[in-house]
Amino acid sequence: MAIVDSNIMDNVVIILVDPSHPGNIGSAARAMKTMGLKELRIVKKENIINSDSIALAKGARDVLESAKIYNTLDDALKDITLVAGTSARSRSIELPLYQPHEAVKKIAEHVRNDNKCAIIFGRERTGLTNEELQRCDIHVNIDANPDYSSLNLAMSVQVISYELRQILITDKKEKPPVNNEFIRKPTHDEVEAYYDFIEKNLLECGFLKEGHNGKVMGQIRRIYAKADLTYHELRILYGILATMLKYEKNANSIKS
Amino acid sequence: MAIVDSNIMDNVVIILVDPSHPGNIGSAARAMKTMGLKELRIVKKENIINSDSIALAKGARDVLESAKIYNTLDDALKDITLVAGTSARSRSIELPLYQPHEAVKKIAEHVRNDNKCAIIFGRERTGLTNEELQRCDIHVNIDANPDYSSLNLAMSVQVISYELRQILITDKKEKPPVNNEFIRKPTHDEVEAYYDFIEKNLLECGFLKEGHNGKVMGQIRRIYAKADLTYHELRILYGILATMLKYEKNANSIKS
Repeated sequence: MAIVDSNIMDNVVIILVDPSHPGNIGSAARAMKTMGLKELRIVKKENIINSDSIALAKGARDVLESAKIYNTLDDALKDITLVAGTSARSRSIELPLYQPHEAVKKIAEHVRNDNKCAIIFGRERTGLTNEELQRCDIHVNIDANPDYSSLNLAMSVQVISYELRQILITDKKEKPPVNNEFIRKPTHDEVEAYYDFIEKNLLECGFLKEGHNGKVMGQIRRIYAKADLTYHELRILYGILATMLKYEKNANSIKS
Repeated sequence: MAIVDSNIMDNVVIILVDPSHPGNIGSAARAMKTMGLKELRIVKKENIINSDSIALAKGARDVLESAKIYNTLDDALKDITLVAGTSARSRSIELPLYQPHEAVKKIAEHVRNDNKCAIIFGRERTGLTNEELQRCDIHVNIDANPDYSSLNLAMSVQVISYELRQILITDKKEKPPVNNEFIRKPTHDEVEAYYDFIEKNLLECGFLKEGHNGKVMGQIRRIYAKADLTYHELRILYGILATMLKYEKNANSIKS
């Protein structure tokens, strides 16, 4: 019989960013649980879970009750190493855009190595902002009727969770490899620290000007998102820049 | 761009058998329309479509308004040549039981030859009866969490309609992209020049020693191979390092 290793499923987190309707949160929890997912995070200034959410969650009340509320998306992503963002259409920031069936292959590969992945869903009407999409490593788009492409939020959660379950159905795969820096993916915070480091130094060197429009940083993010870095590779990239900057600082200190 | 031949989609009919909740009919209509399906049939002694149905159908009110109500399943199936019945689990009557991904292959084959296919969904709580399942040519089961397998009716419609759209998407290949730096890949020589540039400067900074074993350069190559760079992205990476080095050289020239 086809089974799904629940430990692997537990490496997937669903994040709803700024949902408006409490009912949708309940429906999303139900959709998740039917596909074997448990961890729901909500980015919202206040907790809007109410009796509508509970009614629509039906038998997934446990998922709803253990959902955590975060003030910012970055807070919700702290321990995450791969971020997949759902996007209604292609936006100005071009990251690899996958259909769910392809996206879940990337996600499965990732979570099977015991890395934690988040799939983030935007607002009911307007989806994710460009800034939020920039936080993502891959973009997922559910191909829809061009005349009416408005899937309900929880429906999108259902479709992507369904594809995820389909791909994670295994005949009990062997244990994932040892978790070390050559395999493990950097966390969101670790990657953001690297981008901050680049930006700070590019400003200092005059490559970027204060108040720049973020386009170059967006392109840099895209390059490294495509590279799907391991933690070890991130350390190498850091090391290269840090060494160059240290070298330069010594030169300055001799000068002064 | 991926397109779906709407004439082919029009050969697929969704039938809800004895649904209890008017809201679910609206949600099902919405799910259908997002995936490009139009024809909804309902087997029910009376018409239960109400304001809840309309509210949940959102932009798919046309699908809801053109839905036909039938007294019996046999009436609803009169012009249908392939019947796919959704089934929560295997029942006593064993027909071929497919996952949606496999079932839609059968359905696609059928409707592409201009035959009419129905996908039927049972009651919210109890699904289709054995007698109704006997009316079907194939059975479709959405694999779900054994601890909680209760997908909402409209969610099941969404998942199966989604798979159907995926398979009916034909790859209307667009013209090859314009050859510009945002699309074109760097030549072998251009990439090698970048690696040479990195290595030369890492040696100068002391990050690499003369006669190093090439391991770090191998890792750097791997990172950028994974990133599948465009020429434009290669220029950005070049620019970053070149700017930093230029900045450093000025410092040195002031010093000397």
